[in-house]
Amino acid sequence: MKALVISTGSELLRGLVNEDVPLVTGFFFRYGVPTIKEVTLPDDADALRAEIQQAQELAEIVVVLGGLGPTHDDLTRQVLAEVAGTRLRFHEAYYQKILPRLQRAGFDNLDLFREFAVLPEGYEVLYNPVGLAPGLLRETAPGRYLVALPGPPREVRAVLPALHERLQAVLGKQPRYRTLHVFGYTEPEILQVLRQVIPEGTDYSIIANASGIHLTVPVEPPEIVERLREALGTDLYGEEGESLAYVVGRLLRRRGWTLAVAESCTGGLVASTLTDLHGSSDYLVGSLVTYSNEAKVRILGVDQAVLLTEGAVSEPVAAQMAEGARRQLGTDVGISTTGIAGPTGGTPRKPVGLVYLGISVRGHTEVHRHLFSGDRLRVKARSTFTLLDHLRRRLLESPT
Amino acid sequence: MKALVISTGSELLRGLVNEDVPLVTGFFFRYGVPTIKEVTLPDDADALRAEIQQAQELAEIVVVLGGLGPTHDDLTRQVLAEVAGTRLRFHEAYYQKILPRLQRAGFDNLDLFREFAVLPEGYEVLYNPVGLAPGLLRETAPGRYLVALPGPPREVRAVLPALHERLQAVLGKQPRYRTLHVFGYTEPEILQVLRQVIPEGTDYSIIANASGIHLTVPVEPPEIVERLREALGTDLYGEEGESLAYVVGRLLRRRGWTLAVAESCTGGLVASTLTDLHGSSDYLVGSLVTYSNEAKVRILGVDQAVLLTEGAVSEPVAAQMAEGARRQLGTDVGISTTGIAGPTGGTPRKPVGLVYLGISVRGHTEVHRHLFSGDRLRVKARSTFTLLDHLRRRLLESPT
Repeated sequence: MKALVISTGSELLRGLVNEDVPLVTGFFFRYGVPTIKEVTLPDDADALRAEIQQAQELAEIVVVLGGLGPTHDDLTRQVLAEVAGTRLRFHEAYYQKILPRLQRAGFDNLDLFREFAVLPEGYEVLYNPVGLAPGLLRETAPGRYLVALPGPPREVRAVLPALHERLQAVLGKQPRYRTLHVFGYTEPEILQVLRQVIPEGTDYSIIANASGIHLTVPVEPPEIVERLREALGTDLYGEEGESLAYVVGRLLRRRGWTLAVAESCTGGLVASTLTDLHGSSDYLVGSLVTYSNEAKVRILGVDQAVLLTEGAVSEPVAAQMAEGARRQLGTDVGISTTGIAGPTGGTPRKPVGLVYLGISVRGHTEVHRHLFSGDRLRVKARSTFTLLDHLRRRLLESPT
Repeated sequence: MKALVISTGSELLRGLVNEDVPLVTGFFFRYGVPTIKEVTLPDDADALRAEIQQAQELAEIVVVLGGLGPTHDDLTRQVLAEVAGTRLRFHEAYYQKILPRLQRAGFDNLDLFREFAVLPEGYEVLYNPVGLAPGLLRETAPGRYLVALPGPPREVRAVLPALHERLQAVLGKQPRYRTLHVFGYTEPEILQVLRQVIPEGTDYSIIANASGIHLTVPVEPPEIVERLREALGTDLYGEEGESLAYVVGRLLRRRGWTLAVAESCTGGLVASTLTDLHGSSDYLVGSLVTYSNEAKVRILGVDQAVLLTEGAVSEPVAAQMAEGARRQLGTDVGISTTGIAGPTGGTPRKPVGLVYLGISVRGHTEVHRHLFSGDRLRVKARSTFTLLDHLRRRLLESPT
């Protein structure tokens, strides 16, 4: 069984991010149904009709996204009626279902909303608990489905459970892939590991970004995941969406330790990444973002003489920043970043991308030197995730 | 002239957001070239070859995204050679161009990277300043182009200027659209303004996100932009990609003023947003991210009694945080955030999404209360951009 997704909406071809497609393809992937193609079309009934007909020959499940509302550029309902050989009709039962919500919302002229209940005949309604346009489903032949979902991402999210319930019998019951998150490898290096460890012809995918390498591999046979876990050791930092911030948080929480950050070149990104996580206030006390030298002295107690002789981007300053954060915020652990994010400010001895990362754990301080390539945002991101990874490895060595 | 975009990568059909498509379709839209279709395919050479051939009959510019790297699932280079009737060949000049960057990055085994310089014959190279795989372009017939861009979004961004330069003659010499950035409107509100101000039938697009409403309108006739500027007044914060952080930085620099931040619920995001901008060290001295109450007292000098009676999420604490940041870091301006980012921690009196934003300018302090909807990341982002917008408006009122 395969899926094919058709997105509609001219705005998606003019610079708007398509947030629906990952929701739907991720949904099918998790239930073992590959999406073989995704197509985005402008608001054009003829193009949509042709695409649906072509898609039905390629995949058992065809999903059309968007265009279900009542405004002039919402063409999907009409096209769905046409391809089913039916007509649009006012659907009294559906209207009665949304009526109480409209009344509760205090709308005066309820007749304005009757249009939302004008639906193509021959389709089942997938109830939309957060919007007015319902999802639609038609079994066009035994085991073949044409599905339409409303366009707003939060409505897609809200209707997917109804789709899952309706298709439960045909969707597999187990996830078929697992994602492993790895730090400290380049893409060529991870490919070497894969060649040695997993059988040839295995279907896998790799995403490489600032937060590491993200490997998606089949869960069957189980030896694939097992052998990768063994080969990667502690370079494997998490699985199934566990982020570095999440893993670091878990390690800190287990030890009952608190964390303070001192940031220069990352400019707040380390703290922001940590605080994206709900519950981070359990261990994160704060971050002192000291962009100027004066602030490093005043807020973190960095030695002015060392700043002058070694410069702000140096090993001793990184160490003093980590220790200063720990002391000022009274925590078990202090971490720090100081570097040259660019694009200017580099010298031959201290080029753009040079970064020192400090970690101070209960009296013992270590500093790691890195040279990152890429632009300013990339240096910020690489510095942040590399620091979190150093901290993770350091915490693994510390007894709980 | 029309464009058609083909994305490659199985991961894009397994739940990964496609960030490239909006970059490319937005690029073409700005230069007056409509994208008539977007197709995403898995890593499958046959499917890609067929799609390219079909696309070339529909559009003058066909752009293939991704699959240019050297891993087994990167098939684009091979397919490009096939459709051009050429072969892949090691491109010595290109290898020499990327070699210094590899050496600078300190890689030992440089041979691993030779594969990046194996390119299809018959294509021009579009240099990629931030990645190793270059963009490629072939004029398949007079005025018809087949283009390939590397997959990572920051590399797409980095190669687009080279594509623009190469296609300048056919893209039109002037952008035909202009983007206006607006803060403080909902989408229905901005639609009302548009209905009153611009002629019916005008082709425009709207993107709404945490950083405001982004309106793209035609530059001809010039009355459209002029009347919008007039109607929007100071709610129009920038044009053509000027971000709130950029505009705030410009206003501070003009006044010769320095800025300090105190963050609680935004957890470093305000500072990180400001420091994404090159040159921000001219005015930003630092940010004190005080997540715990103790840190608010110890680092910012917030009054412990007020914390106890009013709570950390309160008007007086926001005011004291802004003033404390200004005092501790010795700046002209201090700004602050304190709120409940969620998903837990809300009460009937102080629900999730309640945020206080403080601004202290040379002795005068003001606090704004907001109630934001959405999840944790959305509350962080809305708080950050709303604070920057308040600061912008406050600076506009202050003489230079």
